[in-house]
Amino acid sequence: MVVAELSPSYNKTSLHSSQLSFFSSRLSDHRRISLPRPQNGRRVVCSVASNQVQAPSPVQTEEAKTKGDCYGVFCLTYDLEADETKSWKKLINIAVSGAAGMISNHLLFKLASGEVFGPDQPIALKLLGSERSLQALEGVAMELEDSLFPLLREVNIGIDPYDVFQDVEWALLIGAKPRGPGMERAGLLDINGQIFAEQGKALNAVASRNVKVMVVGNPCNTNALICLKNAPNIPAKNFHALTRLDENRAKCQLALKAGVFYDKVSNVTIWGNHSTTQVPDFLNARINGIPVKEVINDTKWLEEEFTEMVQNRGGVLIKKWGRSSAASTAVSIVDAIRSLVTPTPEGDWFSSGVYTNGNPYGIAEDLVFSMPCRSKGDGDYEFVKDVIFDDYLLRRISKSEAELLAEKRCVAHLTGEGIAVCDLPEDTMLPGEV
Amino acid sequence: MVVAELSPSYNKTSLHSSQLSFFSSRLSDHRRISLPRPQNGRRVVCSVASNQVQAPSPVQTEEAKTKGDCYGVFCLTYDLEADETKSWKKLINIAVSGAAGMISNHLLFKLASGEVFGPDQPIALKLLGSERSLQALEGVAMELEDSLFPLLREVNIGIDPYDVFQDVEWALLIGAKPRGPGMERAGLLDINGQIFAEQGKALNAVASRNVKVMVVGNPCNTNALICLKNAPNIPAKNFHALTRLDENRAKCQLALKAGVFYDKVSNVTIWGNHSTTQVPDFLNARINGIPVKEVINDTKWLEEEFTEMVQNRGGVLIKKWGRSSAASTAVSIVDAIRSLVTPTPEGDWFSSGVYTNGNPYGIAEDLVFSMPCRSKGDGDYEFVKDVIFDDYLLRRISKSEAELLAEKRCVAHLTGEGIAVCDLPEDTMLPGEV
Repeated sequence: MVVAELSPSYNKTSLHSSQLSFFSSRLSDHRRISLPRPQNGRRVVCSVASNQVQAPSPVQTEEAKTKGDCYGVFCLTYDLEADETKSWKKLINIAVSGAAGMISNHLLFKLASGEVFGPDQPIALKLLGSERSLQALEGVAMELEDSLFPLLREVNIGIDPYDVFQDVEWALLIGAKPRGPGMERAGLLDINGQIFAEQGKALNAVASRNVKVMVVGNPCNTNALICLKNAPNIPAKNFHALTRLDENRAKCQLALKAGVFYDKVSNVTIWGNHSTTQVPDFLNARINGIPVKEVINDTKWLEEEFTEMVQNRGGVLIKKWGRSSAASTAVSIVDAIRSLVTPTPEGDWFSSGVYTNGNPYGIAEDLVFSMPCRSKGDGDYEFVKDVIFDDYLLRRISKSEAELLAEKRCVAHLTGEGIAVCDLPEDTMLPGEV
Repeated sequence: MVVAELSPSYNKTSLHSSQLSFFSSRLSDHRRISLPRPQNGRRVVCSVASNQVQAPSPVQTEEAKTKGDCYGVFCLTYDLEADETKSWKKLINIAVSGAAGMISNHLLFKLASGEVFGPDQPIALKLLGSERSLQALEGVAMELEDSLFPLLREVNIGIDPYDVFQDVEWALLIGAKPRGPGMERAGLLDINGQIFAEQGKALNAVASRNVKVMVVGNPCNTNALICLKNAPNIPAKNFHALTRLDENRAKCQLALKAGVFYDKVSNVTIWGNHSTTQVPDFLNARINGIPVKEVINDTKWLEEEFTEMVQNRGGVLIKKWGRSSAASTAVSIVDAIRSLVTPTPEGDWFSSGVYTNGNPYGIAEDLVFSMPCRSKGDGDYEFVKDVIFDDYLLRRISKSEAELLAEKRCVAHLTGEGIAVCDLPEDTMLPGEV
């Protein structure tokens, strides 16, 4: 058994049952206990032999409210290396913001089940919420406890990103303020931009130096840009804005129109902003390996109806279902992560909103813009070379680029580039997203 | 390519683009289209070659409302056997009732993702809702479309169990009426019993002869009994009442108390009714292979607090999270199904509410009672032989047995056994379940 760096606050000796009873009744009360972190960032692992119990020493609980603290059964120590029945990978730390919301309520259970990172990859979930959602976060942690996921080894909850983001290898930033009544898009950019500026600073200070950041909270492209600008020590190319749900919806609509099952549709790009200026690309898309325009011989539909159908899905869903698309958004986040940790199939690609520096498409630098990417499965990606453009596609890409440049000017005070000037055009929020 | 039994309403010839445009614009409108079913129960599979499209002929839509009809992209034909990249198992049909509810909103995406039946098992989802929830069901189907699950080949939605249950191999019966203000447990048994009597008749008439039925809607034990009594042509042992969430919660509480990770806890049985008379069994349970009573040397806690902690989880969760436990319930349904389709680990078992005939524990016959089971992974199960009893355990099992006998007398009018006599004791609904 390997026992790495035992923090002094862990009691390594076997406990008598009276002590056990004291500690474990505290645990079963589900009070959060603040565990001191090892300062050098390495993890503490304690070995637990059969019939020998260990519990963290009780330390002050007053700090608990502001710390990314362990929860319930996840406060217990364990030793993955002592498990003779299975060979585990090294645990990875995943932060999720907006963790008490509906998208997260789907996503967290997917992460914990192993369907994202695989059946031999143990994970720690670091849940970031707000003061207001702290109780709900405890509810989420309770349900994670009751699910007995063998891969889920640690759950921490907290409201301070400087605690929650400590050593995280993935940060899935879902939480964002919704737009209030009468609020302009500029106002939304400002209030959410402030959140993402703070989270960028926190990631810069405490996260893994190669953390991958996936921004879902809207307006996600510009939020991602603000976040990366505030995290200069993290590679800018590690930041993503989620456009995968748009890509998935585009594939589904193309499949429906062509009368084929959706697994036959490939090479679909969402270009640009996650807004109504986004460009679902039917020029490069393929069905059964054949260019879409040769399969769907209906230019009017492609140019005038297809994009609108993709963009209206969220609005239609709210009308029918009464809620916004939490489950399929969570699925698309899973898809987006998987696209970075598994090799992209030969000849295909995926869309992600990424930093434009070095892009081969002539898109203005220093933006977060959705573009076609490929990955070797190492968490990194490269731009796709063999895409084609026509006037129609270029014109629409330019429009989304102009919008993102305007959004960037509007948040200059949050990216450290001077005084904000907001000259945003019409409202380009996607239907069904608030 | 294999083309099996082509129904006359399928157009097998290659369509011209004008026809395609007509058909596919219908599809992309997401109108549900009533597809005539093959009468002999075998599935229709049409082959689609590259760049050749097929769509079902439009038939009358007036019937759509009452039929278990295909939805959107899932109305398209496909040929699993033509896929040269993968070897697929034969598609299985899974019905889910209460499909527009929150538990199903988690469960359906788990089923579709492959985490329940495996990555080479294509599935068809048959969603049963009510007239009131039909729009929401369409929203659920839309989100399933947008998720592009490669394993999910068909989605049907409907409100008539005689349509929706056609040929299903699994029926996950989640939908039930909540208890209204002032309603007695007897009233709840009656209104939900009627639903499960009807669903039993429908399963008996149209489902696969070896369908496995998992009843989640409460009161689930007696609902399952009513269901099986109304389905005499389906083996009674195929019916299950879900007590797996209780088992999972019991394991978590034992882990917390002992200060070990939950994967060290095994052999936990929930005996009896899914109500407050249920008996989480700490006599047979083990931690690291050692009897719990030798590890947790605190009889008072085991006898007086443990059961209450397990039962109060749902109530605590509602207080914290503001909703009932949808995600962890869905996880426990997944666990329950997996326990039947994968071999039980050597020396362990799982709990399920099953038909008592032939049980070796001396429990009254002709009930649905949660007991310890093992499976070879073939969908079937057997009772565990080597369990022990003491007076405490037997006394509590007897109480739950008495309650289920009383519930059975109270629904005699629904099981075909005469006139109902309701002499139910106090309210035994679990906290957090309405």
